[in-house]
Amino acid sequence: MANIRIEFFSNSLVRTVEIEMYIPNDLRTDIQIQHNPYYDRKCKTVFVLHGFTGFGRGWTNLYELAEKYNFALVFPSGENSFYLDSEATGGKYGTFIGSELIEYIRKTFGLCCAKEDTFISGLSMGGFGAIHTGLAYPDNFSKIVALSSALIIHGISVMKPGDDNGIANYYYYRKYFGDLEKLIDSDNNPETLVKKLIQQNKNIPKIYMACGTEDFLIKENRQFYDFLIKQKVDVEYIECGGGHDMAFWNEYFSKGFEWMA
Amino acid sequence: MANIRIEFFSNSLVRTVEIEMYIPNDLRTDIQIQHNPYYDRKCKTVFVLHGFTGFGRGWTNLYELAEKYNFALVFPSGENSFYLDSEATGGKYGTFIGSELIEYIRKTFGLCCAKEDTFISGLSMGGFGAIHTGLAYPDNFSKIVALSSALIIHGISVMKPGDDNGIANYYYYRKYFGDLEKLIDSDNNPETLVKKLIQQNKNIPKIYMACGTEDFLIKENRQFYDFLIKQKVDVEYIECGGGHDMAFWNEYFSKGFEWMA
Amino acid sequence: MANIRIEFFSNSLVRTVEIEMYIPNDLRTDIQIQHNPYYDRKCKTVFVLHGFTGFGRGWTNLYELAEKYNFALVFPSGENSFYLDSEATGGKYGTFIGSELIEYIRKTFGLCCAKEDTFISGLSMGGFGAIHTGLAYPDNFSKIVALSSALIIHGISVMKPGDDNGIANYYYYRKYFGDLEKLIDSDNNPETLVKKLIQQNKNIPKIYMACGTEDFLIKENRQFYDFLIKQKVDVEYIECGGGHDMAFWNEYFSKGFEWMA
Amino acid sequence: MANIRIEFFSNSLVRTVEIEMYIPNDLRTDIQIQHNPYYDRKCKTVFVLHGFTGFGRGWTNLYELAEKYNFALVFPSGENSFYLDSEATGGKYGTFIGSELIEYIRKTFGLCCAKEDTFISGLSMGGFGAIHTGLAYPDNFSKIVALSSALIIHGISVMKPGDDNGIANYYYYRKYFGDLEKLIDSDNNPETLVKKLIQQNKNIPKIYMACGTEDFLIKENRQFYDFLIKQKVDVEYIECGGGHDMAFWNEYFSKGFEWMA
Repeated sequence: MANIRIEFFSNSLVRTVEIEMYIPNDLRTDIQIQHNPYYDRKCKTVFVLHGFTGFGRGWTNLYELAEKYNFALVFPSGENSFYLDSEATGGKYGTFIGSELIEYIRKTFGLCCAKEDTFISGLSMGGFGAIHTGLAYPDNFSKIVALSSALIIHGISVMKPGDDNGIANYYYYRKYFGDLEKLIDSDNNPETLVKKLIQQNKNIPKIYMACGTEDFLIKENRQFYDFLIKQKVDVEYIECGGGHDMAFWNEYFSKGFEWMA
Repeated sequence: MANIRIEFFSNSLVRTVEIEMYIPNDLRTDIQIQHNPYYDRKCKTVFVLHGFTGFGRGWTNLYELAEKYNFALVFPSGENSFYLDSEATGGKYGTFIGSELIEYIRKTFGLCCAKEDTFISGLSMGGFGAIHTGLAYPDNFSKIVALSSALIIHGISVMKPGDDNGIANYYYYRKYFGDLEKLIDSDNNPETLVKKLIQQNKNIPKIYMACGTEDFLIKENRQFYDFLIKQKVDVEYIECGGGHDMAFWNEYFSKGFEWMA
Repeated sequence: MANIRIEFFSNSLVRTVEIEMYIPNDLRTDIQIQHNPYYDRKCKTVFVLHGFTGFGRGWTNLYELAEKYNFALVFPSGENSFYLDSEATGGKYGTFIGSELIEYIRKTFGLCCAKEDTFISGLSMGGFGAIHTGLAYPDNFSKIVALSSALIIHGISVMKPGDDNGIANYYYYRKYFGDLEKLIDSDNNPETLVKKLIQQNKNIPKIYMACGTEDFLIKENRQFYDFLIKQKVDVEYIECGGGHDMAFWNEYFSKGFEWMA
Repeated sequence: MANIRIEFFSNSLVRTVEIEMYIPNDLRTDIQIQHNPYYDRKCKTVFVLHGFTGFGRGWTNLYELAEKYNFALVFPSGENSFYLDSEATGGKYGTFIGSELIEYIRKTFGLCCAKEDTFISGLSMGGFGAIHTGLAYPDNFSKIVALSSALIIHGISVMKPGDDNGIANYYYYRKYFGDLEKLIDSDNNPETLVKKLIQQNKNIPKIYMACGTEDFLIKENRQFYDFLIKQKVDVEYIECGGGHDMAFWNEYFSKGFEWMA
């Protein structure tokens, strides 16, 4: 498994950033490897978005999945931005992931360019990011895997100056989500994006969601699933025992990757 | 020259960050090395702050200086923040550099803890950061080297929504500097910090400033120098032919490091 | 968990090398963490040696163990050397791990220096390396954890020019183990080291060995265990179903780390 | 300038290795950049081989050259091997650089594949490596830039067990160059490769050599130059004041890169 770290200048963020990638293209010839039909096609690309407080680094548990399904994995750093664009110069995280990075990766590496071969996934804040970025760039991604997603739009939309919800304060949310009073109707709300795509008769990427029943975000995940069902969006939703932790994510990345493959 | 990259969780930024360091503690025994008296004392520590659009990476030109003066260098990433604290959760870049990082480095590495052995330096946005952070944490740093410093407080304090000064827009400056109308009197203004330190009869770190006469920031540097002279602050100020570029910084890092040593 | 990569000049290998480390010293203050009594003592250090074809990189499964027991982990690169000294200039891998690296780490980081707080572990070629290096430097290490160890001395001692045992050829083994005809009695044989330590009345580090019954190295592990028992060395030996694979190593690193703690 | 580090499994070395690369493909849109005609063609690739005691890391001085000429730079680690193949399993450094790595880079990155667009360069041991690898793989490289090259074949061919030439001992040279008594006529001698290529009527890559007159390797460089002239090989040879140091290499990498471009 090739493990790659790239520092390059991002024009969306107006600074040099670093990302990590795994590419299963360094096959060993010293050991007998069973024929794997996934290697009869070209390598597909999966963006993997980390959660709040996280960082663009792979974890070795994903080696096996990347190798099994012949997926290149890309791990950008979201820097607690919820992967959204803000008005400030250098604050376009959504554009960075959904457009600039994908083009840079395609240009730099000999990887597939078709949206059919490009997926986006994430957990917690990264689950929100996978859903939001996938819906904002439906021509770039064909499948979304979102685990324990921080679908917090409705909750934070009522926050006022001075508020703090135990995770972050009002100023934090305003910094990344913009004017909270206008949030529900803005493009930062995945529901808004879904409605627009339906109105425009555009294809919506296929969505796989999973959330543990003990997760503090279970209510938010159920609500978004209900919304998608009402909108007749193609979604697979899994709910089962489990919390907001690595045990759950290891299990459901495994299932989500199988679903993508 | 040992070259070190550290990823660790920052409580000021509420996420994992990466910094680079150089430590000249891997002396070779296979070649004859001339006696260097700087190695008769313990290694001192110099924080080096990059400019706007930059990134926390050393550059190999500094190897020679670190080795010559027995300095450990620390290269944090400022992420276009001007190394300032903002109200939003996870936005405390000033606290990160001036307090958390310095404590973390001292705890993790066997380096000097005294402020006499700890310096801060930078170029452009990082020159501003060195001055501001040094003045905000005068018990942690004894010397400041600030090159081509982006001392832009007065210029941006009059910006309004919709403005863009060619480098960044109003929203960018408000994000990192706070309410621009209150900026002049705020602690984000190094002049305010100087006045407070004088009022409180506190020691002010020694300051070395340099700026090229063709630098677009020359006026700002002259003004701040004049301010310091009026306040009777101990400052060395160099002005000479040169622009806002690596040629100037290589030359004046060399001189600034000699001044620190 | 701080994740550190260091490049430094090794005088044993006469070139710059890179190692990785984990240090659990970046405690989060934003989340409630249960009191862990292992943090009432200083951090202990565990060297972790990879196997043949491997590389000095940590794997994220070890994060949890390092954090649980307050262990700093050090991952040197063995470069297929079996962690042994050879005659050639720059070929002293044993000296590198057992002496130079440990001193460099202690000098550079604020970690414990006592042998009681320093352990060595490894898998396959690294299991051999943990046993050999631990026995060669009994004043530096107090405990050894050796999984699926490549205790191949007897097997390769009879190889002749032109031979290849399916893993490597005669020239490979001669390059790292020296003259194979003299191997059994040489200090590259852990049995020789044990006998010498007993003769000299020196303390032998405590040893924990584990091997899967389906492992191709099971015979070699049983033989070495029998040898240790005959020599009355303090050894814990576990044998159970399992192969030469990550599933076994994850399970037994977990048990071995508990034994060390 | 994109800065890339790749860890991948090398089948020539039978283990995971790390290399660094620079690729000037992250053009900034926030600043006006003058038209550079080198960007009207595709990016070319230059392998850069470090010297004895070195390591596969770029140095920031080369940023400017890579950017100026639109060259991707590849920095493999030679691990004091003189970039030669040895008999031992996993000892094929020549095959690694000259064949495996070049194929891996071409496969992984969208870079030029033609030998006309692929160059090899190096300094000291890496100067030897550039010459030897370029001559051993003349279908992969069209130009060679060799600075202060360690063309030491004749000197070490007379070494005996117990000898040490101040840099390394007999066992070191035998380990990497093979049987020293047969060295002159072996394929590890660049002169042998030149003669064979002439005999086979094959194209020889163009060679640029430079050496300082105070360099301890000046005699060896003159001799090899004389040999090439006698063999009517297309070679540019520069000799001027200078030693075996970074000042010389910075100057002549600059000239050598211009020659390549």
